Amino acid sequence: MDYPRRQAALRHAMQLCRTSGLLVTHLANIRYLCGFTGSAGVLACKREHSPGGGKLAFFTDGRYAEQAREEVQGVRVCIAKGSALAAAMSWLDGVSPIGVEAEHMSLAQREAAAAGKRPRPRLKPLAGFVERLRMVKEEEEVEQIEAAVVLASSLFEGLLPSILPGVAESRVAAELEYAARRAGAQGMSFETILAAGARSSLPHGRASSQPIPNKGFVVLDFGVILSGYCSDMTRTLYLGKPTPRALGMYEAVREAQQAAVQEVRPGVLAGQVDAAARRVLQRSGWGRYFTHSTGHGVGLEIHEPPRLGRGEKEPLQAGMVITVEPGVYVPGEGGVRIEDMVAVTTEGCRVLTPTTKELITL
Amino acid sequence: MDYPRRQAALRHAMQLCRTSGLLVTHLANIRYLCGFTGSAGVLACKREHSPGGGKLAFFTDGRYAEQAREEVQGVRVCIAKGSALAAAMSWLDGVSPIGVEAEHMSLAQREAAAAGKRPRPRLKPLAGFVERLRMVKEEEEVEQIEAAVVLASSLFEGLLPSILPGVAESRVAAELEYAARRAGAQGMSFETILAAGARSSLPHGRASSQPIPNKGFVVLDFGVILSGYCSDMTRTLYLGKPTPRALGMYEAVREAQQAAVQEVRPGVLAGQVDAAARRVLQRSGWGRYFTHSTGHGVGLEIHEPPRLGRGEKEPLQAGMVITVEPGVYVPGEGGVRIEDMVAVTTEGCRVLTPTTKELITL
Repeated sequence: MDYPRRQAALRHAMQLCRTSGLLVTHLANIRYLCGFTGSAGVLACKREHSPGGGKLAFFTDGRYAEQAREEVQGVRVCIAKGSALAAAMSWLDGVSPIGVEAEHMSLAQREAAAAGKRPRPRLKPLAGFVERLRMVKEEEEVEQIEAAVVLASSLFEGLLPSILPGVAESRVAAELEYAARRAGAQGMSFETILAAGARSSLPHGRASSQPIPNKGFVVLDFGVILSGYCSDMTRTLYLGKPTPRALGMYEAVREAQQAAVQEVRPGVLAGQVDAAARRVLQRSGWGRYFTHSTGHGVGLEIHEPPRLGRGEKEPLQAGMVITVEPGVYVPGEGGVRIEDMVAVTTEGCRVLTPTTKELITL
Repeated sequence: MDYPRRQAALRHAMQLCRTSGLLVTHLANIRYLCGFTGSAGVLACKREHSPGGGKLAFFTDGRYAEQAREEVQGVRVCIAKGSALAAAMSWLDGVSPIGVEAEHMSLAQREAAAAGKRPRPRLKPLAGFVERLRMVKEEEEVEQIEAAVVLASSLFEGLLPSILPGVAESRVAAELEYAARRAGAQGMSFETILAAGARSSLPHGRASSQPIPNKGFVVLDFGVILSGYCSDMTRTLYLGKPTPRALGMYEAVREAQQAAVQEVRPGVLAGQVDAAARRVLQRSGWGRYFTHSTGHGVGLEIHEPPRLGRGEKEPLQAGMVITVEPGVYVPGEGGVRIEDMVAVTTEGCRVLTPTTKELITL
């Protein structure tokens, strides 16, 4: 991972935003910028007058002293006696304004950062500041993500024999998660969604204690974390012989998914990818049952920018890694979602998920 | 779970804080107040002039429409077309001030809540507002927590044969998590800590790919989630024949843990429990290696108030459920932590964790 490049990009972005200082409090952003993988700390930056110049310091507490010294790259490590945030603010004494992460700094943290300081420091909320840097992945990051995606696909195939009528959804999820861990995953990138029968109409139907029925759709949406990077995939299976209506629903989602993938290339707006999926589902009459957006970026976190929703103006760039996952959910009846991960390339895109999108019947 | 009581307590707390409206954005707090277990939504409350009166409404998006209608208790459910926060703010139109959760509302959310409103609504940050209500558990909650604790203890005993030299720490964690899922846990309450040999000196040493060495301490700290409630336990084992120094370290922590548990009863300040553990470790010469606080509350979340740290003034109350977990960490050498969960009772306390605290050698 190219920490010097990332830290230089951070200093450059600070210059563009005209902020003299910066507090990074969101752990995924801290990891991205300096490599620390623990669960408490604050990264601070002071810009210097030379172009692109600036000093970085990472503050954490005694629990992470050893780990921080091992992991942190290109940044001074300071072990705070009390709060890491207070120590970072002392280090930034006199710097103004200090940029803070608008989506991640809470009102209470802002109060704590300013506590006891006269004059009150000027904190400047910056939206998606580090996330914008993370949006375009380094080659090594795309490789890591692809490794996670490929592992998940292989786990999916291994899991099919476990999806049996009468078995609790949560039991199948347990098998999947065990296999993931044994294969070297650090964990799952979100709570496994496994929704069978009528429950498949819940777009976020986490695996429940309910037994899998003997017919109907089964939506399986899961991801693994490998070396810190997330994967995300959804496939929908059918138990028994699909009805013509079920086949129609599945095919509509499959076409919508393919139409959206075909739209992915540099320069296209995120909302255009969403529109491509939506158009297909409107035409085939399922449009009103597509109740979420088409996708999102994935990387160190499972949900990252860009968001592929209605009207989103973010232009896609080579190096972004996104999901494409339209779905149709008919309450009381069932649902279908198909999701791949896709890397934007200079020529267009590359689907990372190798699993078939033909309807698998069990 | 007694939702009517919780909602009445919320309205009463609003009256005490003199806030006419309230926005609850933190999911664990939403679950506590109305039963919703999904991952997006906002609960809003308008106080009425009658004592303890007020209306509650829950806002979520289309993905959670079915789930919200099934789960939410005693509160009107509204499905927002756009952002749930914006819909909640429209519903609260004209109410002032509106209390918000200081630790959970981000600077960006506060901007979004006020966006386009003239006059700008008065948002009043409230610290730990719902958390204070959650701190004292209902009897049914203590039962749920105890069920999670007892499950975790039984998993611990079943896991001992898997802790073998040469096996990767992460492989042992995989076995533990699989057994937890099979036994009905929804998942783990935090990333499993399994740190063997010299790694045991990392207080937060998540299970790594490193093989377990053939001698030294193994710290295992984990928890399960059962019906939404978390458990948390730590035991430290020894591989091989413990050296006199290792035995001394273990006994010092065990005494500190017992001294702290003996301090737990209603009216005692959280900081006094911490001081009891610290005193024992100071006396036995290990005090400087105890680098964290003694414990924390546990419930719907793994870390809840009260915090059992140095000088904390929160008085313990019957119905609180806390961890007591002193530790000693000698960098490069190894570490020991022993953690039980303890329920505060009217008479004193009850240790919920049934696992032995004798040193287990493997």
